[in-house]
Amino acid sequence: MTKQEILKAFQFRHACKEFDPSKKVTKDDMDFILETARLSPSSFGFEPWHFIVVQDAELREKLKNGAWGATKKLETASHYVVCLTMKSHFLKHDSPYIKDFMKNVQHLSDDVIELRSKFYRELQQSDFDLSDDRKLFDWATKQSYIPLANMMTVAAMLGIDSCPIEGFKQAETDVVLQKDFGIDTTQYGASYMVAFGYRVNEPKVKTRRPTEEVVTWR
Amino acid sequence: MTKQEILKAFQFRHACKEFDPSKKVTKDDMDFILETARLSPSSFGFEPWHFIVVQDAELREKLKNGAWGATKKLETASHYVVCLTMKSHFLKHDSPYIKDFMKNVQHLSDDVIELRSKFYRELQQSDFDLSDDRKLFDWATKQSYIPLANMMTVAAMLGIDSCPIEGFKQAETDVVLQKDFGIDTTQYGASYMVAFGYRVNEPKVKTRRPTEEVVTWR
Repeated sequence: MTKQEILKAFQFRHACKEFDPSKKVTKDDMDFILETARLSPSSFGFEPWHFIVVQDAELREKLKNGAWGATKKLETASHYVVCLTMKSHFLKHDSPYIKDFMKNVQHLSDDVIELRSKFYRELQQSDFDLSDDRKLFDWATKQSYIPLANMMTVAAMLGIDSCPIEGFKQAETDVVLQKDFGIDTTQYGASYMVAFGYRVNEPKVKTRRPTEEVVTWR
Repeated sequence: MTKQEILKAFQFRHACKEFDPSKKVTKDDMDFILETARLSPSSFGFEPWHFIVVQDAELREKLKNGAWGATKKLETASHYVVCLTMKSHFLKHDSPYIKDFMKNVQHLSDDVIELRSKFYRELQQSDFDLSDDRKLFDWATKQSYIPLANMMTVAAMLGIDSCPIEGFKQAETDVVLQKDFGIDTTQYGASYMVAFGYRVNEPKVKTRRPTEEVVTWR
């Protein structure tokens, strides 16, 4: 993989406002994009996420509720992903999920589980102060932005456009998720949405601050 | 770029615990990794980040203060990056930075600035409730995890190892940043660190939940 190919993907990617509804991402490509999400890293490797690919037209219509930034993407995207991020129920340092995860997904030994449990508790209690539900959800959401980035970058490498979406009211989206998707919103919250497809219009020129304003060498 | 090449990078990447101190990432490669950070997307495109590449041995020593998860990486990494994320000073919806950014970096017209200012204010005040300094910093940190993911993925594509680090006490790190780096920590906070270099040991087998537990199609 050459640097030039990689850079081309970063230049190709933009927040695609409207997709060509006649062009569909293949199932194979979409599965591949999701696979790079699945393989993404997260703090302690706890993978605090779940992705719902919303293809049903009625469900997409429901998601418009409170999602001012999503309407056109819900209508035109080939594939539409809602990222659910885990809440305290799963992520509190002493939750059964965490214990089970270290043992049965990560296959850690009892010694290592004990040590990592201690570090994880300290991260929550002192280092980052994850002492209430909101702070813990925000921390888990930070992790969920790693697969978001990877999905968008990999899509661009395949010539597929994307649009990340924060433009929704979390409370209203939670109601839809609970009522129409059967999600237990005491356990999961919507952290972002991301649409995939093929652009209708060429984007405007990418703007960024220059390197010297973004990077300092010491 | 083939899917197989991309997947190989995702399999190659792991949280590298110790780097070979004799192997250096070239300046050209490091600049390239940072360039993909610079080109990363963020909410409203506000780029709420700044990257400090810490190569000075004394400064690295200082960073060990309160950074229990960083010691071995500070000692062995070829390149060590501290991500600073912007605080309310810059990011409040009515800050001079935001206004200037839309005008002079994004080159938006007055009409568009007005419209986007309204959406940005609504995002802060209602949709995501970014009503205090901590919530706003967490939100900006979520954005900063996008370049984190891209830097690690792109490094892996170049055969370069990395390790993301949250294992530090924010308060103690802030003291070091202020005292030894001259950073105004009322304006910026350390959100994460990330080390780059070349592995000493082969990682253990990657574990992840299976796709059917991570993805739901609707």
